[in-house]
Amino acid sequence: MSAAELIAASATAPALDTTVPAAGLSPDGLEALLREIGARRYHNLHPFHKLLHGGKLSKPQVQAWALNRYYYQATIPRKDAALMSKMTDRATRLEWRHRYFDHDGIGDDEGGIVRWLRLTDALGLPRDYVESTRGIIPGTRFACDAYLNFVREKTLLEGIASSLTELFAPGIHSERISGMLANFDFIDDAMMGYFTRRLGQAPRDVDFALTYVKAHARTAEAQQAVADALLFKTQVLWAQLDALHFAYVEPGLIAPGAFRP
Amino acid sequence: MSAAELIAASATAPALDTTVPAAGLSPDGLEALLREIGARRYHNLHPFHKLLHGGKLSKPQVQAWALNRYYYQATIPRKDAALMSKMTDRATRLEWRHRYFDHDGIGDDEGGIVRWLRLTDALGLPRDYVESTRGIIPGTRFACDAYLNFVREKTLLEGIASSLTELFAPGIHSERISGMLANFDFIDDAMMGYFTRRLGQAPRDVDFALTYVKAHARTAEAQQAVADALLFKTQVLWAQLDALHFAYVEPGLIAPGAFRP
Repeated sequence: MSAAELIAASATAPALDTTVPAAGLSPDGLEALLREIGARRYHNLHPFHKLLHGGKLSKPQVQAWALNRYYYQATIPRKDAALMSKMTDRATRLEWRHRYFDHDGIGDDEGGIVRWLRLTDALGLPRDYVESTRGIIPGTRFACDAYLNFVREKTLLEGIASSLTELFAPGIHSERISGMLANFDFIDDAMMGYFTRRLGQAPRDVDFALTYVKAHARTAEAQQAVADALLFKTQVLWAQLDALHFAYVEPGLIAPGAFRP
Repeated sequence: MSAAELIAASATAPALDTTVPAAGLSPDGLEALLREIGARRYHNLHPFHKLLHGGKLSKPQVQAWALNRYYYQATIPRKDAALMSKMTDRATRLEWRHRYFDHDGIGDDEGGIVRWLRLTDALGLPRDYVESTRGIIPGTRFACDAYLNFVREKTLLEGIASSLTELFAPGIHSERISGMLANFDFIDDAMMGYFTRRLGQAPRDVDFALTYVKAHARTAEAQQAVADALLFKTQVLWAQLDALHFAYVEPGLIAPGAFRP
């Protein structure tokens, strides 16, 4: 769907009501609400995602995406560490730290950040420039920092709930892998290593998180906080694609100081 | 300048170098650098500002601007309170609290937030909807929250330096008042009360802040931090107009859940 088509469709779409009834929801009812939020708000619906997996971007536009998304990748282990700092239960920390390892690496696994840097390397971006993050759009930085601050300031339950966009990630990852490989001649299997690896990691992670929120959000107030946390996270992801689209697709106004292809 | 013209001009503009030399700058040299940052990065250069003061927006677009900017207005007194919490010197707090009063009001002065709500009232936006902030673009929220978090987490000197965009505000305010009054038949003098009032407040505030940073930033490191803080703040303002332009001008993709005219 192009931006114009999405604009037309969204003008008539019914509003999404995420209000939890005063009597609360069953655990499965809560799961259904969370899945509805994903179906309506996940960033696979954003026109920039369609352009990316459909091969409709130039190499400089893919560079801009990979450069900006590096900051998101680099924020994730900090977010997970902030969440672990709230876990008084050791067993929960031991479970959650797999996520931290997934990104920063452990043992033979170099971790997701290094795999991301292999992608930006292969796209021809200097590694020190990528790691400095000085070329990212301010909107990218503000969205990612909002995620980190959310997890720091909200409850553990809300922090865990905000990770539940992973429920919807396997679909977007496989769409991205096949679409990018098929449509861009400058993308190869090795460059997609990050996403290939995530296909196995995300389902394991999300099982734990979903079970956790279903077990711990037993009042209407807690369930509302869980739904709001997931909505917030969809905004964090959506806003990053808004910023990329604005700067590098339409109208193409790159904020001063940001990467200029 | 339209978005297209700005895109063309920015493609050939020389990069802005804000590096403070290792030997440091004189206080006046620091002021010159700060004024250069304003001249190159302040949001009066953004095409959305040009559309606004040039009367080139529809009433719903002006509503979207006023609705979103309400969140910025509402963030300012929280930002000033966070800064005051870092001031161990009572005299500095007594000086700075004028800013807090300017926004939350004191005595006969209702304050800037109420003046802003008079504008959104007159534009036909329900006050409870505006105050709930539930219709703002996520990019607005993330940018404003980034400002609050910056002031909370950085040094007092950096927090004060981040206020120095006020150096450039009188020009934008008077441009906005005259341009909006001349060009929109749904805008009258009373609705511009916020900006009329700010014309007198901002110069008093900025004298103190500028004198403060020139007196306290005496090493190259501190001066670099001051320049970086002002650059950061220009990004906070610029990113808000990026988000408005993307959602309500071009391509017009309104993030799910945000105000839909």
